[in-house]
Amino acid sequence: MNRQIVLRERPSGAVDAATTALVETPVPTCGSGQALVRVGTLSIDPTIRTWMNDAPGYLPPIAIGEVVRSSGAGVVVESQSDRYRVGDVVFGMTGWQDWVLADANNHFTVLPRGLGLDLATVLNVLGVTGITAFFGLVDVGRIKEGDVVVVSGAAGATGSAVGQIARARGAAKVVGIAGGAQKCAEVVEIYGFDQCLDYRDGHLARRLHEACPAGVDLYFDNVGGEVLDAVLANIAMRGRVVLCGAISQYNGAGTGLVNTSMLISRRASMEGFIILDYAPRFAEAQAELAGMLARGELVHREHLVTGLENAPDALNLLFSGGNHGKTLVVVDDSVSLD
Amino acid sequence: MNRQIVLRERPSGAVDAATTALVETPVPTCGSGQALVRVGTLSIDPTIRTWMNDAPGYLPPIAIGEVVRSSGAGVVVESQSDRYRVGDVVFGMTGWQDWVLADANNHFTVLPRGLGLDLATVLNVLGVTGITAFFGLVDVGRIKEGDVVVVSGAAGATGSAVGQIARARGAAKVVGIAGGAQKCAEVVEIYGFDQCLDYRDGHLARRLHEACPAGVDLYFDNVGGEVLDAVLANIAMRGRVVLCGAISQYNGAGTGLVNTSMLISRRASMEGFIILDYAPRFAEAQAELAGMLARGELVHREHLVTGLENAPDALNLLFSGGNHGKTLVVVDDSVSLD
Repeated sequence: MNRQIVLRERPSGAVDAATTALVETPVPTCGSGQALVRVGTLSIDPTIRTWMNDAPGYLPPIAIGEVVRSSGAGVVVESQSDRYRVGDVVFGMTGWQDWVLADANNHFTVLPRGLGLDLATVLNVLGVTGITAFFGLVDVGRIKEGDVVVVSGAAGATGSAVGQIARARGAAKVVGIAGGAQKCAEVVEIYGFDQCLDYRDGHLARRLHEACPAGVDLYFDNVGGEVLDAVLANIAMRGRVVLCGAISQYNGAGTGLVNTSMLISRRASMEGFIILDYAPRFAEAQAELAGMLARGELVHREHLVTGLENAPDALNLLFSGGNHGKTLVVVDDSVSLD
Repeated sequence: MNRQIVLRERPSGAVDAATTALVETPVPTCGSGQALVRVGTLSIDPTIRTWMNDAPGYLPPIAIGEVVRSSGAGVVVESQSDRYRVGDVVFGMTGWQDWVLADANNHFTVLPRGLGLDLATVLNVLGVTGITAFFGLVDVGRIKEGDVVVVSGAAGATGSAVGQIARARGAAKVVGIAGGAQKCAEVVEIYGFDQCLDYRDGHLARRLHEACPAGVDLYFDNVGGEVLDAVLANIAMRGRVVLCGAISQYNGAGTGLVNTSMLISRRASMEGFIILDYAPRFAEAQAELAGMLARGELVHREHLVTGLENAPDALNLLFSGGNHGKTLVVVDDSVSLD
């Protein structure tokens, strides 16, 4: 059977027991041009929560009754397609389920073997997470040597990569923002940021001013809301704000921005992006990220949750801050790049 | 004597009787390298109100006891400078007063005669107002043929010029936002916008969606706050928001933005600018604006208030919406370009 987690009702805040249901359906049959994929590991990303809302977005909302949309990796166990061979480890939109069909409507990428990297690392650093950090910083944010860079969600998978790429690109100072003393310690000690501010301590705008007295040249925003507002109060002349995510807003709990006028007086800009637009250029980012990994310049952590049935709880970890590093759900631990 | 309006105390909302004081001082003496200017007409701009706040901005706040900072035009009545001849009509930072010295610290530009334009027109269309509309739309907003353009403060001096320049540059649709039925009628009938929405009628986001069903490609924002938020809800893919002013916020009455996440899902950007940065390129804008004037493509109105002593009330008109067109204070009506 194919265990599937489907959306039962739209959550108003955090995902709870009523949001999803675990159902069992027959394993899909592999037809012509298709490959049957055994799902190994799911990538748990904040954007999944936005797809659960009945609101306009960059993809349509997940329909009620539909399998929860998610990227992930798996192994091809049967193939009637020229694209995939049995035994290939592939990455794509697996959804929260045990089995999925790869075909023309749901295209998967074959992951490289022989790099000496495990599947979790590839899903994190060489996957959407690392690629998002790279293009957000380099392309949208136009990072340049000597920039003072601030990153929110700094202990998270994307944020921790952003700070390290900024360092490698010659940032003068890299300051993280995270929630709680433990995470702030991780940001400095594990990921090598110069400093990390705990937004829960209050007076964030004032503390940012102390940390960045000449202002913030580049801000990579993963959270939105009050934290974004505090950075706007400190934006430097011609500063750039890269809007990657707004996790503080996804659960509907956000407050409004009041400091946008600073964009005028500081001639600053704020720009959003969606990493799917960069798909044709993914290899460019992966080459640079693989180089950083090989040189030991990119520290990364993965937070593994075991069991498909725990995917909803794993998603909630992103919002409660209970995760450490990239959150992945291991559905079948026999799927590997070894 | 030189009548001067000085800042007595910082206003918390609108300027009132306690904010300024009219004082009389001796007419300044013209020294070497200086010219004595008789002030003719003052340009009344929303930004003056921001200079009255004790807050960081693109220029220092006006000090208590200092003459209120303002641009304006006047005539040179005495000169010990190579730059100015007696009889030149000059533009610069006159302040709210009868007399001012032009010198190395306070540089004035000699205005062109013989264009057949009166001083009020020059102060409006060829002055900071028209130049702001031009560079905001063309340079910051990167307007292109076929854009759906929305402008707030559309009945105002800057907004009305923005809509007409957008039309001349090939916009597919030009929609204004203004306060009240009379202003909305002016925007369509006098300035030739396709449509104008009264923000006071409520449900602005929904009505914008009806007016621009495929979204807003370029939004020129003069007001900030709720109106900006309603446009963000309707921003098109890769839309551009040009932040020129935030008049709804200057008096401290603003509400926060909640729709900035739309910048992410629509890959859109928001950028502020200050027209002073474009000073080296003013002639470029003036040439194009003078051409539009000559071809009758640029309808403009000036709202003249007579008497230096009425400058504070004239400033309040910008916030109450009581003005129609570019607000100017005539200090001495004998100063002209004839």
